[in-house]
Amino acid sequence: MNSKTWKIYLAGEIHTTWRDHLQLAASEANLPVEFSSPELDHDSSDNCGVTILGAEDNAFWKDRKGAGINAIRTKNLIADSDIVIIKFGEKYRQWNAAFDAGFAHALNIPLIVIHPPEYNHALKEIDAAANAVAETPEQVIEILKYIAG
Amino acid sequence: MNSKTWKIYLAGEIHTTWRDHLQLAASEANLPVEFSSPELDHDSSDNCGVTILGAEDNAFWKDRKGAGINAIRTKNLIADSDIVIIKFGEKYRQWNAAFDAGFAHALNIPLIVIHPPEYNHALKEIDAAANAVAETPEQVIEILKYIAG
Amino acid sequence: MNSKTWKIYLAGEIHTTWRDHLQLAASEANLPVEFSSPELDHDSSDNCGVTILGAEDNAFWKDRKGAGINAIRTKNLIADSDIVIIKFGEKYRQWNAAFDAGFAHALNIPLIVIHPPEYNHALKEIDAAANAVAETPEQVIEILKYIAG
Amino acid sequence: MNSKTWKIYLAGEIHTTWRDHLQLAASEANLPVEFSSPELDHDSSDNCGVTILGAEDNAFWKDRKGAGINAIRTKNLIADSDIVIIKFGEKYRQWNAAFDAGFAHALNIPLIVIHPPEYNHALKEIDAAANAVAETPEQVIEILKYIAG
Amino acid sequence: MNSKTWKIYLAGEIHTTWRDHLQLAASEANLPVEFSSPELDHDSSDNCGVTILGAEDNAFWKDRKGAGINAIRTKNLIADSDIVIIKFGEKYRQWNAAFDAGFAHALNIPLIVIHPPEYNHALKEIDAAANAVAETPEQVIEILKYIAG
Amino acid sequence: MNSKTWKIYLAGEIHTTWRDHLQLAASEANLPVEFSSPELDHDSSDNCGVTILGAEDNAFWKDRKGAGINAIRTKNLIADSDIVIIKFGEKYRQWNAAFDAGFAHALNIPLIVIHPPEYNHALKEIDAAANAVAETPEQVIEILKYIAG
Amino acid sequence: MNSKTWKIYLAGEIHTTWRDHLQLAASEANLPVEFSSPELDHDSSDNCGVTILGAEDNAFWKDRKGAGINAIRTKNLIADSDIVIIKFGEKYRQWNAAFDAGFAHALNIPLIVIHPPEYNHALKEIDAAANAVAETPEQVIEILKYIAG
Amino acid sequence: MNSKTWKIYLAGEIHTTWRDHLQLAASEANLPVEFSSPELDHDSSDNCGVTILGAEDNAFWKDRKGAGINAIRTKNLIADSDIVIIKFGEKYRQWNAAFDAGFAHALNIPLIVIHPPEYNHALKEIDAAANAVAETPEQVIEILKYIAG
Repeated sequence: MNSKTWKIYLAGEIHTTWRDHLQLAASEANLPVEFSSPELDHDSSDNCGVTILGAEDNAFWKDRKGAGINAIRTKNLIADSDIVIIKFGEKYRQWNAAFDAGFAHALNIPLIVIHPPEYNHALKEIDAAANAVAETPEQVIEILKYIAG
Repeated sequence: MNSKTWKIYLAGEIHTTWRDHLQLAASEANLPVEFSSPELDHDSSDNCGVTILGAEDNAFWKDRKGAGINAIRTKNLIADSDIVIIKFGEKYRQWNAAFDAGFAHALNIPLIVIHPPEYNHALKEIDAAANAVAETPEQVIEILKYIAG
Repeated sequence: MNSKTWKIYLAGEIHTTWRDHLQLAASEANLPVEFSSPELDHDSSDNCGVTILGAEDNAFWKDRKGAGINAIRTKNLIADSDIVIIKFGEKYRQWNAAFDAGFAHALNIPLIVIHPPEYNHALKEIDAAANAVAETPEQVIEILKYIAG
Repeated sequence: MNSKTWKIYLAGEIHTTWRDHLQLAASEANLPVEFSSPELDHDSSDNCGVTILGAEDNAFWKDRKGAGINAIRTKNLIADSDIVIIKFGEKYRQWNAAFDAGFAHALNIPLIVIHPPEYNHALKEIDAAANAVAETPEQVIEILKYIAG
Repeated sequence: MNSKTWKIYLAGEIHTTWRDHLQLAASEANLPVEFSSPELDHDSSDNCGVTILGAEDNAFWKDRKGAGINAIRTKNLIADSDIVIIKFGEKYRQWNAAFDAGFAHALNIPLIVIHPPEYNHALKEIDAAANAVAETPEQVIEILKYIAG
Repeated sequence: MNSKTWKIYLAGEIHTTWRDHLQLAASEANLPVEFSSPELDHDSSDNCGVTILGAEDNAFWKDRKGAGINAIRTKNLIADSDIVIIKFGEKYRQWNAAFDAGFAHALNIPLIVIHPPEYNHALKEIDAAANAVAETPEQVIEILKYIAG
Repeated sequence: MNSKTWKIYLAGEIHTTWRDHLQLAASEANLPVEFSSPELDHDSSDNCGVTILGAEDNAFWKDRKGAGINAIRTKNLIADSDIVIIKFGEKYRQWNAAFDAGFAHALNIPLIVIHPPEYNHALKEIDAAANAVAETPEQVIEILKYIAG
Repeated sequence: MNSKTWKIYLAGEIHTTWRDHLQLAASEANLPVEFSSPELDHDSSDNCGVTILGAEDNAFWKDRKGAGINAIRTKNLIADSDIVIIKFGEKYRQWNAAFDAGFAHALNIPLIVIHPPEYNHALKEIDAAANAVAETPEQVIEILKYIAG
């Protein structure tokens, strides 16, 4: 009987198509969910600051300008969410994914974490803060079907 | 003149049809209310964790997996609610119903409690935190008609 | 190096001496902890309302008067706490213990739950919300030594 | 004229002695600061769950038990803090350091981040959320002297 | 350019038609406002508790039952509001109007107070907490036209 | 075992000596309580604004200046409190007492109300929000002894 | 995939047409944004208090009456916003623009500041609190296209 | 009877000795107050960022580094305060003073503003948010004596 549309933020890994799989499956299952995400174009995300607000000699401040703009989006969308899903993948250090998880957790937003088992120990604090720890996006689809279907 | 649609979470007892009675009566009276609830299928609720995320040898961790997933739903829906109605029945220990009541109360959401008079003393702390203590779902329908009708 | 004095609320079961064991052990280990609790005298707790504010014919309102006064204490002490420890025992329905757990959890206060394994399934939602699930007060003492020692 | 004693949580890297340097310098400079930290003994931190609450066959649940207990400490101490300092070092994935940073940031606690310049790009979101980005603990001591001295 | 629909709670005096005047004027001016109010039928408001939940011998508990039910409505609608307007009139003690004003003020909801000048001194604390002090509902209509028109 | 010092704000009626009775009794019983109150000198309270900040021709603005200064005190002390006690007496309209009650209630601070039974109906909303309704300060002393003694 | 409509409050400078440029560009780019602003008619803003609520001899209280009414609008609209954009121009002291920036920042709403470079030093605290510092409204349009487009 | 020590943050103007006058008078009157303030050495405040964290070619980023460090102090001390006093003087643009006022106001901390009458109109929004508007520090001392004396 629940008429809620669930707002779900998809954090973490941006170089694979996991968000598309989730969205497709949710759409096929007619789930009442709305996904949001950070900027997914890596170059746009890295360069938005200097492209819009002017070049910087120093890479540190170039990053600062971009991160400030990106945070307008991510802080708003995470704070708006009913669930935050974070995927930790094989590449990159992904500290921003862990940062988003901590941010959402402090706001009392339930977390679902996706990662391969070899990261179990390294991610134990985040897993313990999460409501569910999945290994694959397919499992997350099942969770969403169960909760919102 | 109030145009509000009241969001109402129905906590507690899941093995009887009290929610259906409430919904039917609200629908017949055209009340501007939207009900939500925890998962009502007892087996699904118990098994969702291991069904979706993989089997567990230990019943304790099986329960943990399921409870984590169910809490994504219940925490969101309770926090979204304008009123939380909790029915304490004759069967089971129903600690989760009391837990939900405490959770909602800390969030300043008005409570309506339904229970037979023989539980008056055992439920006195929860009754004292509630805005109304009813003996039957029919009384709750009258409250909803009065508030939202 | 942490100089914090930990404020710990001991909820649940009041007819056994588990609080005394915890306090004695904490005192022997010189732990920087301050315990608080609800009123532990069962009769005083039940009768405080009518004793102080006047008799009631109706047991329901007698309980209401007492519960209101007791809640001044419990709500304040729980909200003040760094940790809430809840013991579920064999006797009584203990809905107020579960209510306190939900209340504290909504306030983001870490929970430690103590109960025998036979309640694992009935308490699965509360266990999932807790930071630790112990079977005995002795285990809780070890946790406090580890955290605050 | 400020009489405040500043509470400072030292997150991140636990296998080097950076916290000791900070404490020594603060003590020599008579700064009105109180430091706190997570459990610094790596083995204790990893094993506290099973040591206290009983063994687990599954490493995932062993980690869960430990992380739950550790979080009682870290969540309390971070939430109590006026400043959270996070050191990212060369070893390990340090996702919990980034998680703590996100958690503290959502609670509006100012962050100071310490990391070598080669992590500038990978940590740009956390740096942008921070009030200061230092390369060395010595710089942090200067900040504390300036603010609290 | 503001597209906001303003939610306005009309507290206080229920035995005159001031709310109707406000609504009519807002409707004629096509203002984007939605009004809400407490139960306006004095008898229903007084008797709802015992009518729905069963008679009480003691008038004090009869009032308690009714006040509990009415508070489900008033607490929700006040907390939902963008503006709370409180009219203090010539009749009755109107302590609940002042209570609503204090409640709304603590929730940071702007207050507009309506009262005749002879109450200026008696209402000075509430006037000082208000954003506007009017003598007539007509002035309040002008304020709403100015803000929301 | 509770070591808490209870902070108690005494609102309402300032022209009788009820606060002194409460303080004396608390002191004789060695209760760990600290009382606070609004300015109790009626003239100082009324005139503080113009005395300090300059005269006003208009009594309305004279009152505004004074109420602004008094609110610095009352808002701080109420927000600091563990319990707010409000005495409604026979004289004056006492809207500020009711306003303080609403303010404290929205901040989740338990209320104890003192008033003669003839005000039961007029104060039913405030009584329903309170944890205890007493007729005399002596009863309040008993409550404080029970809670904090 | 984000379906969010972004609510954006445009604070500061009201004597130029920068808001119109922003709105036109957003409309041409079909951005899912809703702008709001303070009252933009300088005379209405200055005189609303005395026009609606009656004349004042003293300019200070005339301003107080007007500011109270204007704050009903500005506090609501700022608190509702996802982003607050503040333009500091060449004329006037613009303390209210800086006040709005501080207010929004304390509510955790991301800020975008627009000002000419010659104010860099004078605005350094506000710039440091902002997510982006632009020199022109055109740059802000690019930010909005990037975030919400 | 109030035993509170009032924490008071002194914002605004740093190039005159008004804080010293306030402190001296408070000390002579034995007021239970603790003052805090931003860094009062103008050069230290401007240069702390580059002095501690390394030089910057660009003045904008030099200011950013310093403002970040200063905000660790100011945000903490303002949030800790019971009262924020802001002095607007004749020199400089003082946008940070107005920013601090808005920040404190959103945190519900009572404001006292000091400024010469010629700024009445330019500061009307901040004055309307304040509990008291003084022309001189001497008047503020009288307020503190009245409130805390």
